[in-house]
Amino acid sequence: MTIPGAAPRTHIVGAGLIGASIGLGLKSEGWHVTIEDAHAEAEALARAIGAGDAPGDDEPELVIVAVPPAAAPQVVVDALDRWQHATVTDVASVKAPIAAAVEACENAVRYVGSHPMAGREISGGLAAQGDLFKARPWVICPNGAHGEAVAAVRLVAETLQCDVVTMDAAAHDAAVARVSHAPQVAASAVAAALGPLSAEDVALAGQGLRDVTRIAASDPEMWADIARLNRPSLMATIDHIIGDLEDLRDADDLGEAVTDLIERGRVEVARIPGKHGGATREWTPVTVIVPDVPGQLLRLLTDAAQVGVNVEDITIEHSPRQPVGLTTLHVLPARAQELAHALAENDWEIAAP
Amino acid sequence: MTIPGAAPRTHIVGAGLIGASIGLGLKSEGWHVTIEDAHAEAEALARAIGAGDAPGDDEPELVIVAVPPAAAPQVVVDALDRWQHATVTDVASVKAPIAAAVEACENAVRYVGSHPMAGREISGGLAAQGDLFKARPWVICPNGAHGEAVAAVRLVAETLQCDVVTMDAAAHDAAVARVSHAPQVAASAVAAALGPLSAEDVALAGQGLRDVTRIAASDPEMWADIARLNRPSLMATIDHIIGDLEDLRDADDLGEAVTDLIERGRVEVARIPGKHGGATREWTPVTVIVPDVPGQLLRLLTDAAQVGVNVEDITIEHSPRQPVGLTTLHVLPARAQELAHALAENDWEIAAP
Repeated sequence: MTIPGAAPRTHIVGAGLIGASIGLGLKSEGWHVTIEDAHAEAEALARAIGAGDAPGDDEPELVIVAVPPAAAPQVVVDALDRWQHATVTDVASVKAPIAAAVEACENAVRYVGSHPMAGREISGGLAAQGDLFKARPWVICPNGAHGEAVAAVRLVAETLQCDVVTMDAAAHDAAVARVSHAPQVAASAVAAALGPLSAEDVALAGQGLRDVTRIAASDPEMWADIARLNRPSLMATIDHIIGDLEDLRDADDLGEAVTDLIERGRVEVARIPGKHGGATREWTPVTVIVPDVPGQLLRLLTDAAQVGVNVEDITIEHSPRQPVGLTTLHVLPARAQELAHALAENDWEIAAP
Repeated sequence: MTIPGAAPRTHIVGAGLIGASIGLGLKSEGWHVTIEDAHAEAEALARAIGAGDAPGDDEPELVIVAVPPAAAPQVVVDALDRWQHATVTDVASVKAPIAAAVEACENAVRYVGSHPMAGREISGGLAAQGDLFKARPWVICPNGAHGEAVAAVRLVAETLQCDVVTMDAAAHDAAVARVSHAPQVAASAVAAALGPLSAEDVALAGQGLRDVTRIAASDPEMWADIARLNRPSLMATIDHIIGDLEDLRDADDLGEAVTDLIERGRVEVARIPGKHGGATREWTPVTVIVPDVPGQLLRLLTDAAQVGVNVEDITIEHSPRQPVGLTTLHVLPARAQELAHALAENDWEIAAP
């Protein structure tokens, strides 16, 4: 069993992006980490990059299952059986089906669910980085596990400098269906609806469409796994979205129905946390026309810094047919006018207040 | 009639953001511009900021109708009747209903539809800027107008340094339904589906949800007008999206259905033009952990510039509970590793390759 506060001997099953990244991160903090993968090549690669050693005679105190979501339930059950004294966690992005698979085992008190929420979709151990999860949420679903098991998993998340969030597995799955899985599906559906358009039609796209469809370029196989495992919550969310869209179709006054939907959407968007956990701050955009030659962005930020205005966010919109881009600096409302004035004095063309 | 190449005497009906911005832009290029608004206060404001003079005795050669979309058809018909020798255009974001209203008039050959595509939704003459449309697409729908009328409207768009695109009105409406109106509605539906979640659940949101729902904070009234006018094309697009979502609900294998939808979406996303009209270039992301203190972004770009790597795009992701943000620099694939290495040498924490 894990001594609270001390690094447990850790074994990772699965040497893809997630498993290898966790291995690299823990090893760099001095943990004793071993790693294995069903594919000899992936295992050799993970060892070569220093994500974990070959297992020795000592039994692990903590096992981290980092296999594809569809395989996770069985691999977790097998791990609980194979290592009779270890805490077992997994990193799949759907948690209730794994908790359900474990529930019947007599070893269920040694299983804790994890979901380290990496923000990007790349795969393979070659892409691994020890700080992949740094500053990201790491959800822990205790599922009735005993306190020492939960503490061991929490120590992993804290060691990797994650933002630890404890949730019930079912609540986690319902939440990620709405904040992650359904938005992915909806973005793909909006993109797929471009199908009938000519290239000239698509060229009318502005930043709005680019934002909505950015995640539509994700890995289909991984999302197929996730959708299968989280089917009930995902379909409840999609039905919610279909219902709202059907209400538009059936409305006597489409305008009123659109107004109602947009107003409900605005209320929810305001709840999405911005910087440091508060609701999204209202920054004021200052949009500048930037010639497409190297170094302009740096020159722009240098000029902004000389006025002492902190740039909170940047969005860059490329113009489809012209050698310029529109770069928007988001700043505190009280500083926007001053910034626009100062930039104009430095020969920047300001596009909108 | 307009002498090709010479600036026509121009009268603007409607002194909101669009009308006043066009007036400012044309006047700064030396055009003779008059402006009126049904609201005396808006008219006085537009005159005060220099968006147009009071109409005199000379009849205008070109009339630009810049009233809310719902009012545009009648105001255009009235303008064709009121000024018997003028070319008339309008700037509404839906074009076929206005063309249909004009079609019955004997003056139809003097009407040309316009859609200057401003990228942001702010309203009122106070927000006007002469270069609001610079580097944006300006769609012209000739609708069978005679050549001189089309040339006069094209001259406006070119004078405002827009990217002129000529389209059929029906094709325009079908296209904007898919690239603009339906994405707006879908973003609101995704946001509205967050309704059942607690604040802690919503805090699991990553950059994907933020991107998809960014435009959900738009002005409900304007979108109600647009939806009413473009109902057939908007509903055809929404039915396309509903159909794709229902296919997921009805699928024997949800995973296969999701894979199919994501693959179709990827094909379409690749068609959205990136910089300079080509398909989106594949840039490689270099993600850096940036402490939330002023000046860090500038320091980061300065360090990137010292290696001579041009930053093509930037995305900034704020961490909900920690005093750091993740800033991603998008660069040419061949330069990404070199940039990451150089930044690491300058003590930046690189989060992912």
